[in-house]
Amino acid sequence: MKNIRVGIIGATGYTALEVARLLQSHSGATVVAATSRTHAGEALSAVHPSLSGRCDVTIESFSPERFAEHCDVAMCCLPHGASAATVQQLVQHGVRVIDFSADFRLSDVDIYHQWYDVQHPWPERIGATAYGMPEFFADDIRNADIVANPGCYSTSAILPLAPLLQAELIETDDIIIDSKSGVSGAGRSAKLGTLYCETNETISAYSVGCHRHQPEIDDIVFRVSGKSIKSLFTPHLTPMDRGILSTIYVRPKSGSVEDIMACWQDRFADSAFIQPVDHLPATKHVAGTNYVQMTARASDSRVILVCAIDNLGKGASGAAIQNLNVMFGLEETTGLI
Amino acid sequence: MKNIRVGIIGATGYTALEVARLLQSHSGATVVAATSRTHAGEALSAVHPSLSGRCDVTIESFSPERFAEHCDVAMCCLPHGASAATVQQLVQHGVRVIDFSADFRLSDVDIYHQWYDVQHPWPERIGATAYGMPEFFADDIRNADIVANPGCYSTSAILPLAPLLQAELIETDDIIIDSKSGVSGAGRSAKLGTLYCETNETISAYSVGCHRHQPEIDDIVFRVSGKSIKSLFTPHLTPMDRGILSTIYVRPKSGSVEDIMACWQDRFADSAFIQPVDHLPATKHVAGTNYVQMTARASDSRVILVCAIDNLGKGASGAAIQNLNVMFGLEETTGLI
Amino acid sequence: MKNIRVGIIGATGYTALEVARLLQSHSGATVVAATSRTHAGEALSAVHPSLSGRCDVTIESFSPERFAEHCDVAMCCLPHGASAATVQQLVQHGVRVIDFSADFRLSDVDIYHQWYDVQHPWPERIGATAYGMPEFFADDIRNADIVANPGCYSTSAILPLAPLLQAELIETDDIIIDSKSGVSGAGRSAKLGTLYCETNETISAYSVGCHRHQPEIDDIVFRVSGKSIKSLFTPHLTPMDRGILSTIYVRPKSGSVEDIMACWQDRFADSAFIQPVDHLPATKHVAGTNYVQMTARASDSRVILVCAIDNLGKGASGAAIQNLNVMFGLEETTGLI
Amino acid sequence: MKNIRVGIIGATGYTALEVARLLQSHSGATVVAATSRTHAGEALSAVHPSLSGRCDVTIESFSPERFAEHCDVAMCCLPHGASAATVQQLVQHGVRVIDFSADFRLSDVDIYHQWYDVQHPWPERIGATAYGMPEFFADDIRNADIVANPGCYSTSAILPLAPLLQAELIETDDIIIDSKSGVSGAGRSAKLGTLYCETNETISAYSVGCHRHQPEIDDIVFRVSGKSIKSLFTPHLTPMDRGILSTIYVRPKSGSVEDIMACWQDRFADSAFIQPVDHLPATKHVAGTNYVQMTARASDSRVILVCAIDNLGKGASGAAIQNLNVMFGLEETTGLI
Repeated sequence: MKNIRVGIIGATGYTALEVARLLQSHSGATVVAATSRTHAGEALSAVHPSLSGRCDVTIESFSPERFAEHCDVAMCCLPHGASAATVQQLVQHGVRVIDFSADFRLSDVDIYHQWYDVQHPWPERIGATAYGMPEFFADDIRNADIVANPGCYSTSAILPLAPLLQAELIETDDIIIDSKSGVSGAGRSAKLGTLYCETNETISAYSVGCHRHQPEIDDIVFRVSGKSIKSLFTPHLTPMDRGILSTIYVRPKSGSVEDIMACWQDRFADSAFIQPVDHLPATKHVAGTNYVQMTARASDSRVILVCAIDNLGKGASGAAIQNLNVMFGLEETTGLI
Repeated sequence: MKNIRVGIIGATGYTALEVARLLQSHSGATVVAATSRTHAGEALSAVHPSLSGRCDVTIESFSPERFAEHCDVAMCCLPHGASAATVQQLVQHGVRVIDFSADFRLSDVDIYHQWYDVQHPWPERIGATAYGMPEFFADDIRNADIVANPGCYSTSAILPLAPLLQAELIETDDIIIDSKSGVSGAGRSAKLGTLYCETNETISAYSVGCHRHQPEIDDIVFRVSGKSIKSLFTPHLTPMDRGILSTIYVRPKSGSVEDIMACWQDRFADSAFIQPVDHLPATKHVAGTNYVQMTARASDSRVILVCAIDNLGKGASGAAIQNLNVMFGLEETTGLI
Repeated sequence: MKNIRVGIIGATGYTALEVARLLQSHSGATVVAATSRTHAGEALSAVHPSLSGRCDVTIESFSPERFAEHCDVAMCCLPHGASAATVQQLVQHGVRVIDFSADFRLSDVDIYHQWYDVQHPWPERIGATAYGMPEFFADDIRNADIVANPGCYSTSAILPLAPLLQAELIETDDIIIDSKSGVSGAGRSAKLGTLYCETNETISAYSVGCHRHQPEIDDIVFRVSGKSIKSLFTPHLTPMDRGILSTIYVRPKSGSVEDIMACWQDRFADSAFIQPVDHLPATKHVAGTNYVQMTARASDSRVILVCAIDNLGKGASGAAIQNLNVMFGLEETTGLI
Repeated sequence: MKNIRVGIIGATGYTALEVARLLQSHSGATVVAATSRTHAGEALSAVHPSLSGRCDVTIESFSPERFAEHCDVAMCCLPHGASAATVQQLVQHGVRVIDFSADFRLSDVDIYHQWYDVQHPWPERIGATAYGMPEFFADDIRNADIVANPGCYSTSAILPLAPLLQAELIETDDIIIDSKSGVSGAGRSAKLGTLYCETNETISAYSVGCHRHQPEIDDIVFRVSGKSIKSLFTPHLTPMDRGILSTIYVRPKSGSVEDIMACWQDRFADSAFIQPVDHLPATKHVAGTNYVQMTARASDSRVILVCAIDNLGKGASGAAIQNLNVMFGLEETTGLI
């Protein structure tokens, strides 16, 4: 019986579409509302023709009152800055929220202001919001009013790194994260840089040394492991729809690649989606799923960690469904396997 | 010696970039000016980083006087409607123009108004402008003040069809043209429909029964062959940067596939770029070039013609260079082989 | 409870992988065996790393006895010619079979021999086997020992055409089917023609006038509608993993585009997967699903039908699961929505 | 006048095709012969349909005598191991050779044997062969009988690194090279791993810590700069035809990013193809060319170098033409701009 009523805010983007797609086969939750400033009155399936005949919701303008009446939980797919105020309204109206933006992910309001360059409307909740990674924060998520859904790149780095740092298997300094993402991570607004002919048949680095997921990685790794790191993170735009591959160069502190694999296996023994694997993972191995494949390889002075996720899956909408399951006491894997 | 001075109007798009790219290795012409309403003052290579160090032009605002002073020929890459008035100014200032828009391609102003839905500022020149397909109109082009550069889809249909109709090898009715184009044909403005994630990993038909190249095909085929046809043209957006493949279903009137191949070989014997081939052409066989590969296959009641071009090559900028060569008395293949 | 035990024969290809992927979330069937001549002894997830941790089957050599013991149904993913003998063995051992090959699709053994160029080992069953399209043959499928799973291209043509022919809305002659398929349709064996650099950034026609799905289309359309047609079918290889778009040019006999849409809506009212839509369908709208989107557009003398499927979904493995559901009395949509 | 006669050995691959393509517009050299073990007797344009009508050579079996008679230079596109013996024969018959394999690139025969796992037939020439990077070894190349054409990945790392090491701007230890290559780098033989559906829509690392270009990088960097480094090199297979992007993490020794840019500008002042640029280069910016774009960005403790080449251009066939130009006293840029 589909009894959890989900509303999607900012329903025109790819993460919203993926939420709607995933919930079609979810046995305990269903999409009952969707909002957009620009498409109110249209069918959601007119904006996303792949939902034709599969999701009958009509897009409406956002109203916290209406959400309070009709929805048990809101998936808020607004951009950072715009999201926080909406999340605040929803919470004040008693609606639980899974927030896809970065507005409630960090621990420190100063770091938020420094990296996001907008004034936060509800700074009290920075550092006081559940981070939506059930592998590490399931207890926080269970009773949360707001869950800050993790950043896509952050997910691909935090999951392999945090357990190894906590177990003191790797050094805290000089961690280099070289990430490659599919284009859907850039969103669904009409921009020159993500036109087909600009991104097809080419790869490039961007935001070198200044991407906003870097402080998020350092922050959450600290929360999980108690270790301060200073990572160097370089994202690359890769000609594919979906997927993030992070190649992470760390310095081993003690032990071997086998110890690293064992640490992951132990730490993630009860995590249905985290797969330490022997092969070198490709993003296609996890495309369309909530799975994470990770492995380690030794070199002379370094260990190379390779982690593959789907940026729209475990990197966004899959994680959101997983969080929803935890928040509402369902089996964590419901609708995701 | 590079003595023909070329100015590009509307220099931010893909056809303009391809003109600049092709002229780098052209022995008789060079880009000396480039205009854009939105990027005046910037280096052309800032807009198109692939031109870094290879083309030193600074983008300026359009001025017909300045063009008259500095340019022998203008490549006008503006959209239809906007182009005609600019072309008129250039011609009045004594600058010869190769016009990439549809504004001077058709023979009949009523058909123009019907299909393009804008009032033409210089209707006298409709039906009185050289159509830039040197394979059929070289004499017109040689002394033209304006050359109407052909539409990309039109090129892929007119070249194979016109000689066969003229030779009465195929029937004039029920010609079905099913065309597949790369995404660069849709231009370089930021639109949702040509975002990477909207066009990658998918193929779709568009403008079914109402694409503007259909009247152009019928018109030019008539000019070449003297035969009135009524084609049915369906374009498809294909996940690749470049290339058009047209699969054309015709009804044979007399003779065989061999006669069709012979007709082409005869008609295009002196055309350096037209290649009747035995194999089934793929767009990649002509990508980046001005070549056209075409072949024919028999079926029970139909003959299937297959024609491959590069929409930015023979379908746009390559053809423009070829026209420039003809206009200025150079070898037709200069800079194109 | 997952009680239908499925064995996959020829488990290294893309259709087999898609069967395994789809059955992961199927509530009534599970993969219990997989065979391959070349990979016996390996884990299925070693051949398909996307199955890591999700499907624990070890590949074995084929034995009809073992299948009879352990499997309720076999998904036979062998190529035509090789498949028929294996299917025969399975049936003789009491295992029901869904056959992905063309070996049991046609009605006439002579046509099979003419088009497939191999001697059929069990000709008695040609014309006496259920064709696996539940939209038209559900009763045959329900109790079938063998279900001939339809060809991918055939599916995209038969579904829109058959009802219109039966209702006498379109003429039987001069039906032109121009189809565009993703590369997975060509299989997973190492061939030059399907290397990445051979098929990326290019589109081409192949098997023009001689593709084996043409007689299948004509045959099944006749079985459904009682009308003899002679279609002209041209397949194209398109640079994408999945999807078939068929653009079908028909001649209207009576009535309008609206009548065509109404005919489909009526005929497919109880078919969960068939979606007559107003928009022009793109293959991405149905990628990864068992859905079929189809629409119609008028032109002067023709009507253009456009149909989109996923060649691995409704074109192969999705249809196979749907057939399995019908064969075993499950809800037709189980595991597919 | 095209007077340098070029023979291509192993003409069925992508590097051979690119040589033939580039030489079409070369004013001083022309392809006169092509060999292949498997396609002797066929037209080269039958193997590569994009050469139809543009290159009339018939493929033959290899004969050093015939090459000595008809060719001034051989482009040897054979794989490592197979190449050395053929090169030896050619040299003994007086034919100058540009060797695309790794057989003559390294300085130390033991390192060759260790990494390439074949016995070298002509070890005397290891360490005694010109390395085909005219930016550093033009004098060696000018009179060479053999030029060892550089590895594609190696090119993208050596060019930015060597000058900085020589100028002591960066530390020699802990250099991390994270490279992303298009699929053409894997060659044109039919292998499962480079099928379209295996490499499309996915990115993965391979040969982590054990790719053969790593010792080549270290070796040549030492030859240029006199500095011993120990790089850590990770290649990634990226879903695009062409291009390599190398993101290189170095530790600055003295000076700033500006010093690095100035060092490159100074060192490559006379190198027509090397472009230190301010923007972050994308592989598309250099696709189809012999250009190299490189830039540098500062981070806390590291400097990030980003270098883009076309693996078939400066990474293989473009470099080969450049070497040919140097060997035969032509302008270095002939046929490449």
